[in-house]
Amino acid sequence: MDTLTRLEQTIATRRAASPDESYVAKLHARGLEKIAQKVGEEGVETVIAALAGERQELIGEAADLLFHLLVLLGAKDVALEEVLAELDRREGMSGLAEKAARSE
Amino acid sequence: MDTLTRLEQTIATRRAASPDESYVAKLHARGLEKIAQKVGEEGVETVIAALAGERQELIGEAADLLFHLLVLLGAKDVALEEVLAELDRREGMSGLAEKAARSE
Amino acid sequence: MDTLTRLEQTIATRRAASPDESYVAKLHARGLEKIAQKVGEEGVETVIAALAGERQELIGEAADLLFHLLVLLGAKDVALEEVLAELDRREGMSGLAEKAARSE
Amino acid sequence: MDTLTRLEQTIATRRAASPDESYVAKLHARGLEKIAQKVGEEGVETVIAALAGERQELIGEAADLLFHLLVLLGAKDVALEEVLAELDRREGMSGLAEKAARSE
Repeated sequence: MDTLTRLEQTIATRRAASPDESYVAKLHARGLEKIAQKVGEEGVETVIAALAGERQELIGEAADLLFHLLVLLGAKDVALEEVLAELDRREGMSGLAEKAARSE
Repeated sequence: MDTLTRLEQTIATRRAASPDESYVAKLHARGLEKIAQKVGEEGVETVIAALAGERQELIGEAADLLFHLLVLLGAKDVALEEVLAELDRREGMSGLAEKAARSE
Repeated sequence: MDTLTRLEQTIATRRAASPDESYVAKLHARGLEKIAQKVGEEGVETVIAALAGERQELIGEAADLLFHLLVLLGAKDVALEEVLAELDRREGMSGLAEKAARSE
Repeated sequence: MDTLTRLEQTIATRRAASPDESYVAKLHARGLEKIAQKVGEEGVETVIAALAGERQELIGEAADLLFHLLVLLGAKDVALEEVLAELDRREGMSGLAEKAARSE
């Protein structure tokens, strides 16, 4: 199983844990606003790492962003699969658009 | 091949296209600051969709965020694989930490 | 009258204008989410200007941020005066805290 | 003297303090990236407070945002006065544009 799908499952499992034992459970106990806030903050930190940081910092911040995005999606009962299907759908449309453009 | 890896390859291919034909090429032509800005903005829009939007809006914004994150990583020559490896590494550490905690 | 107080009044007046004639009215017509989104985006652009931009870009982005913050406060019926009073209150507390620290 | 100008002076004074005694000095010791990060984060928190919070939370977050914006401007040797002058300049232009539109 790929990393993000496995991580999504791990996050779903940890939600049921005690907030004292699990960071995911603690985030959930603090509420949707705090989970969303983390996604926004990690977005900002990813920006800063890309502009002013070392390579390894960008890797770390992108990982933080993906992790908290999965926590947020889980909190809203949205499956990663639905987001990936949306990306597939767009790429299909984009591919068709390019094909149409080439045949003009 | 999974969606994000395929999208990463598509993005890498499109970078070489003309900015008139490709959104990815246009973003690259505008520079790293603009690419990073998009990631920050999509982070904000994901926050808003999670707090005030419909389910489908969150799916769309999360897709936008993943897409622009891949563009940013590509612009900095960071492979998605490196970010996923970092997530695997953390989950491994977290698993060990939990195992250690359980055996106390 | 100082700049921000005058700008706050201008914004309040423009809210009543037609969205075709006024940017403030257009933002209001698009709803609170869009106004809040602009504040988040200008925050990101201020970050980028500070790290990677010219001096004049930072001045411009900080002006954008203040402008949209005033639009957001107005949309929520919060007066700038209330935010300034909160800053005064904190500075008063901070002054007392420093005084207390010095007399220890 | 108005609140923001006085706060700007207080921030300038505190920069010279010890990081152990002053939050402003501590922020400066951590570097420009950390100061910019705070502005981005407070932007996100202001968004969330506007969409999901109580009135008093929005006041508090807007105060945090203004405070950290002043710290960032100070760190880049930009005076608040320069940002206010930019807002005045735009309002002047906007007024002229409206006047021109009315006389058409």
